[in-house]
Amino acid sequence: MAHAHPQTAFSNTTFPKPSFISRRREIVYQSTLLYQLDVLKSTGRYDAFKLQWDPSYNDKPNVWPVPNHLFWDSDVAKWIEGACYFLLWKHNETIDGAVKELVDMIRAAQQPDGYLNIHFTVVAPEKRFVCLRDFHELYNAGHLIEAALAHNKHYGTDDLMEPILKYVDLLHKTFGPGPEHRHGYPGHPEIELALLRLFEHTRDSRHLDLARYFIEERGNPTGQGGRHYFDVEAEERGESPHDMMVYWPAERPYQYYQAHEPIIDQPTIEGHSVRAMYLLTAVADLVRLDGSKDNKPKRDALERLWSNMVDKKMYLTGGVGAHKQWEGFGIDYFLPSGTDEGGCYAETCAGIGVMMLAERLLQLDLDGKVADIMELCFYNAVMTGMSADGKRFTYVNQLASTDTDLSQRAEWFTCACCPPNVTRLFGYVGGYLWTSKVDDRSLSVNVHMYSSATLSVDVGGATVEIEQVSNWPWEGKMEFAVRNASDVPTTINLRIPGWATEWTISPDLPSPQVVKGYLMLPADWLRDNPNFTLNIPLKSRFVSPHPYTNQDIIALARGPLVYCLEDVDNPWVNDHFKSLVLDPAAAISETEASIPGTGEPYVALTGQNCASFLSVDASLAPQLPRGSTTQESDVKVDKLNFE
Amino acid sequence: MAHAHPQTAFSNTTFPKPSFISRRREIVYQSTLLYQLDVLKSTGRYDAFKLQWDPSYNDKPNVWPVPNHLFWDSDVAKWIEGACYFLLWKHNETIDGAVKELVDMIRAAQQPDGYLNIHFTVVAPEKRFVCLRDFHELYNAGHLIEAALAHNKHYGTDDLMEPILKYVDLLHKTFGPGPEHRHGYPGHPEIELALLRLFEHTRDSRHLDLARYFIEERGNPTGQGGRHYFDVEAEERGESPHDMMVYWPAERPYQYYQAHEPIIDQPTIEGHSVRAMYLLTAVADLVRLDGSKDNKPKRDALERLWSNMVDKKMYLTGGVGAHKQWEGFGIDYFLPSGTDEGGCYAETCAGIGVMMLAERLLQLDLDGKVADIMELCFYNAVMTGMSADGKRFTYVNQLASTDTDLSQRAEWFTCACCPPNVTRLFGYVGGYLWTSKVDDRSLSVNVHMYSSATLSVDVGGATVEIEQVSNWPWEGKMEFAVRNASDVPTTINLRIPGWATEWTISPDLPSPQVVKGYLMLPADWLRDNPNFTLNIPLKSRFVSPHPYTNQDIIALARGPLVYCLEDVDNPWVNDHFKSLVLDPAAAISETEASIPGTGEPYVALTGQNCASFLSVDASLAPQLPRGSTTQESDVKVDKLNFE
Repeated sequence: MAHAHPQTAFSNTTFPKPSFISRRREIVYQSTLLYQLDVLKSTGRYDAFKLQWDPSYNDKPNVWPVPNHLFWDSDVAKWIEGACYFLLWKHNETIDGAVKELVDMIRAAQQPDGYLNIHFTVVAPEKRFVCLRDFHELYNAGHLIEAALAHNKHYGTDDLMEPILKYVDLLHKTFGPGPEHRHGYPGHPEIELALLRLFEHTRDSRHLDLARYFIEERGNPTGQGGRHYFDVEAEERGESPHDMMVYWPAERPYQYYQAHEPIIDQPTIEGHSVRAMYLLTAVADLVRLDGSKDNKPKRDALERLWSNMVDKKMYLTGGVGAHKQWEGFGIDYFLPSGTDEGGCYAETCAGIGVMMLAERLLQLDLDGKVADIMELCFYNAVMTGMSADGKRFTYVNQLASTDTDLSQRAEWFTCACCPPNVTRLFGYVGGYLWTSKVDDRSLSVNVHMYSSATLSVDVGGATVEIEQVSNWPWEGKMEFAVRNASDVPTTINLRIPGWATEWTISPDLPSPQVVKGYLMLPADWLRDNPNFTLNIPLKSRFVSPHPYTNQDIIALARGPLVYCLEDVDNPWVNDHFKSLVLDPAAAISETEASIPGTGEPYVALTGQNCASFLSVDASLAPQLPRGSTTQESDVKVDKLNFE
Repeated sequence: MAHAHPQTAFSNTTFPKPSFISRRREIVYQSTLLYQLDVLKSTGRYDAFKLQWDPSYNDKPNVWPVPNHLFWDSDVAKWIEGACYFLLWKHNETIDGAVKELVDMIRAAQQPDGYLNIHFTVVAPEKRFVCLRDFHELYNAGHLIEAALAHNKHYGTDDLMEPILKYVDLLHKTFGPGPEHRHGYPGHPEIELALLRLFEHTRDSRHLDLARYFIEERGNPTGQGGRHYFDVEAEERGESPHDMMVYWPAERPYQYYQAHEPIIDQPTIEGHSVRAMYLLTAVADLVRLDGSKDNKPKRDALERLWSNMVDKKMYLTGGVGAHKQWEGFGIDYFLPSGTDEGGCYAETCAGIGVMMLAERLLQLDLDGKVADIMELCFYNAVMTGMSADGKRFTYVNQLASTDTDLSQRAEWFTCACCPPNVTRLFGYVGGYLWTSKVDDRSLSVNVHMYSSATLSVDVGGATVEIEQVSNWPWEGKMEFAVRNASDVPTTINLRIPGWATEWTISPDLPSPQVVKGYLMLPADWLRDNPNFTLNIPLKSRFVSPHPYTNQDIIALARGPLVYCLEDVDNPWVNDHFKSLVLDPAAAISETEASIPGTGEPYVALTGQNCASFLSVDASLAPQLPRGSTTQESDVKVDKLNFE
C-alpha cells in the first residue's frame, strides 16, 4: 500500500473506545449531519439540482458580483462527502436516502455536453466559464469530484462518479495548453486537489494533466494571448479596469486569487487563506505524484510558503488569515487579536486547509513540527468551528472579542463553506491520526496525533492492528498494543510534540532516538514489546506570539490546546479582558469538569490571584511618560477561569 | 484688536536675535523660496496660468482618475502666499518679480464668467464642476484665496484679490441651498477655511454664507434630489457604482472625503488626515465667527474629534495618519511605526493642519494641552518636512525606516502639496508663537511657544513690545522684557508644557496660578517686573505611546523634541533598530553639536550601555514559550546616538 489520502485511509481507523474525538464524531453523526440536511432543505439547497427557480435567486448579492447561491453546489457536495464517510461507519436510513436522492438529482441535472452547475444552468447559462476569477464553477466542480470519490468508496458504485467524470471530460476539453483550449484556471483553487485525488482513483492521466495545467498556468502573466488570463476574460466581459469587488484591497489584486505570479515564484504567502491552502495542498500532491517533472521549484515553494506562514503569519491557535476584507494573510507579523485592532479572521475552512496541507507535507517529509501545526489547527482553529452540540458553527475564529464583534457561533451562513467542511473532516479524521506504509511484507506507521483508536492494516493477507488508548488531549498517557505483527516486521514512529518538555516510554527503550520530532520504535523492540506506554505529561504553560507581532499577550496552553478566557465564565469582566494583565508566574490549578448538556469531560484551568488590571494615565497623550501605565494590584483578580 | 489669524498677526512678530526658528526662516528666505521657484519653472507649473498646452498634460495619471497636474494651481498659489509673507520681512527682487509676473498670468487666465483653473480651462473645459469629489477645483480656489490675502497684505493692492473675488462670486452663484444652486461641496476641504479668512478681510456676508454652506451641507445623505451629492454627480458622470479609486479602501468610502456624515454627527475622526484637519480648522473658525447660529453641536464635534485624534490616533511625534492607501486615520490605537508593520504616514501637510486647528481651538478655549500638541507637531511632524538646507522635503514622516521604505527627503513630488506648505508656514510662523488681545486700553498676551522674538502691539496709539530671548528648544531659560507698557495694563499667560515637571520664574511671583497649562502673570506684577525670566529645565525623558496601540516602544524626548535614532548616526545598525531594546534606566548624556554645512547648533543625546539586542528563539512558532525572547546583554550597545 502506497500513500493514501486521509479521505481514503480513514476507514482503516476505528474508534472502539470513547475519546474526545469519538464523542465529537458521535455528535456529528447523531446531530450535525441531520441538522445540516434540514438546513440544506429549508434554504433551498437540497432541491437546487432539480434546476427549478428558487425565489432567492432574485436576491441582491450580499457581495457583488457573486450571487448568494453560487456555492450551493459545493454545500451539497460537501454534505454528501461527509455523509458517505459516516455511512461507512454506521448506516442511517435518512442520511442514506438523502444521499441517493441527491445523487439522482445531480445525475438528472447534467447537461447533454456534461456541464453540471446550478446557477449557470438555471440562472445565467450565457455566463458559463466567462468569469473563472470570481464565479466558483470549477470550485464547485472540485467538491463534486470529492463527493463522487466518497460516494464510490461507500457505495462501491459509479452512480455519482459517472456524471462527474463526464463533467471532467468537458473541463479537460475546455481548459489546457492547446490552441483549442482556454488558458484559464479557477479563482478559487479546489479542483486541483480534487483532480489529483481523482487521478489516484482512476489513474487516468488526463486528470493528472488537467490538475498540473491548472497549477502551473496559474499566475502566468502572458498566458492568454500574451496577457494575464484574468485580464483577458475581464475585458471580454466588458469589465472596467477600475471596477472593484468589495473583497479587493486594490485594483486587480490577483494575490487574492493566488494568481499574482506562478506559485513557484511566490516569495511569501499572500491573499485569501483558504485559496492558498487548497492550492498548496494540490501542489504537494502534484510533487508526490508527478514523477516525470522536475519538482524542486515546487518543493522549494512549498517549504518557503509553509515556513513564511507558520513563522510569521499564523496565530498561536494555528489560525491563519488576519484580514477580513480579503479573508486572508497580511504582511509578516501582522496578527491583531480582534476587530478593534484591525483584524483576526482565522476562517474555519482555512484551518482545515492547513491540516490538509500539513498532512501532504508529512507524506513528503516526516517532520514533527509540521504535525504539531496540524494538531494545533485541529483543536484550536477547526474544532472551535462547531459547538459541542454540533449545531452551531463559526466562520471566523478571532482571538479576542469586542462589543461590536462578539465571538459567537451561528446556526448557518449565507456563504456556508465552513459547517459542512467541519462535518466531512470529522468523517475522515481517523486518517489524520496516523499514516502507514506497507513495503513488501513490512509495516511502518507514523503516529501523528493521539486519541483512543485502532488502525488495521492488511499486510500480505494478515491484518496488523495497532491500538492506542488514551484520554488525550486531557491526559498524556497513551497505551499502545500491536496485534498480529509476529510475522510482520513493524516499525512505529511516535510524534513527540515540540512543546513537550519531557516524555517517557515503557518498557524501557534502549538508546531512544527522536528524529525530527518522532520517536523511532525499531521492529525488534516492538516484536518484544507489543504493549507499551508513552507518557507525555501535560502541564499548563504560557505562550506568546513572536515579539515582532507587537502583540504583548500571553495565552494559556496545555498539551495541544489553547485555552479561552471567556466572558461567560468570568462574568465580572466588562471589557473583554482588554485591560487584564496576567501574571505568568502565578499558579494555575486543574479541575476535571464536564460540558453541560453533552456531559463531555474536560480539564478546566483556574488561576488564583493571577491577574490585575492595567491602569493608564493618558493625560499626556500621545506621549505617555514612563510610569503612566501601571497595574492596579488592589483589584487583583482572585479567580480567572480558562475553559 | 480682535482675533487675527496667524497669517495676519505674524507681521507683529519680529526675530531680531538668532534662534532655531529665525535660522530656519533665513534658510527658507535665502534658499527654499528660490529653489522652489526654480522647480515651479522647470516643471511647467510657473507658466501654466498662461493656459498653453504642457507636454506633461498627456501623461497617464499616477493615481487614476486624477491628472498629475490637477494641483498645479495650488502649488503656485501656496508659493505666492509664502513669498508674500517673506517679502513683508525683506525685499528680494527675484521673488518680487516672480510674484508680480504670476499675478499677471493669473489675472489673464480668468475666464469671462470668472472661472479660474488651469486644467479645466486648458485640458477639460467640459468637465468643469462635474467631479467635486476628486477633482480639486475648489481646493485650488481656496489656495488662490489665501494667496490673494497674503498678496493684499504685502502689496496693499487688489491685483490678485480682484480676480479671486470675481471667481468667488461665480462659486457663490453656483453652489448653495437655493433651487438654482448645485448642492455640492469639495472632496478636499480648504476653500472653507480660505473663505472664512476672506470674510474677515472683506466682511462680505456671502463669503461667510458660502463657507457655512460648504461646511454644513457636507455629508448630507439627501442633499441633492434626496440623495448624496457625490452619488448624484457620479451617476451624472456615468461612473459605475463599482468603480474604484486606488485610494479607496471600500466602495464609495465617503469618510475619505469627510462626507460620510455631517461633521456634527461624526463620532470619531476618520478618513484622509489633511482633509479632516482643514475642515475642522474651518469649523472652528465658523464657530467663532458665526454668532447667529447655535454653535454647540459644532463646538462639541470639535472637542470630540480633537480628543479622539490626540488620545487614540496620533503618533508620539504629533504626526497623524496611519494608512498610506487613504493617507489617513485608522481605527483607534492603530499606529504602526513603519511600512513593515502596515502603516505610518503622518503627512507633513497633516501636521500643518493639526497646527492650524490647534491655533483655532486655542482661540476658542485657552488650553495648554492643545498648545502642547501644536508645538509637538511643529517640531516633529512639520519641521521634519524640510531638510536643514531647505532644499529637500518629506511627504511622509514615518517613525521607523525599513529596507524597502527608507526615511529620506526628496527634491520634489508629483503631488507637491507639502514643500510649499512648509514654506508658507515659515513665513507666518511668528503668528503661532503668541496671540494678543487688546481690550479697551489693556493688553492680554498668551505665549504658546518659546523662541527669541519680539511682539509689537498697538494699544491706543502706543506700541507695547514684548520680547522673549531664549535658546529654545535647546535650553529652557526664557528672558522676557515688556516695553512701553507703563500706561497699558498688560497681562501675560505663559504656557507651561504638560511634560515640564518643574519650572521657576524670577523675580518671585507670589501665589503663582497655572490655569489649564498657562501661568498667569497679572498686570500689577508685570508693571513692577517688566523684565522677568521663566526657566523650564529641559531634561531628556523616555516616552511611549498608549499600551493599546500595541507598540512596545520607547522614544527619547527632550523638551518639545522627539529624538531620532538614525542609521546614519549609528552605522553598526543593520536592521533599522528593529531588534534594539533600550534600557530606560540608562543615563543619557548631552552634547552641544552643530549641523554640518549650515553650522546650526543643536543638542545631541548619547546613551552609554543603554541598549541590547532582542534574541528570539522562534523554533516553536507560532507559540513561543516563556523565555523564548531574551535580551543579549553580551552585545550591549556601548554608544547610541540620538540626533
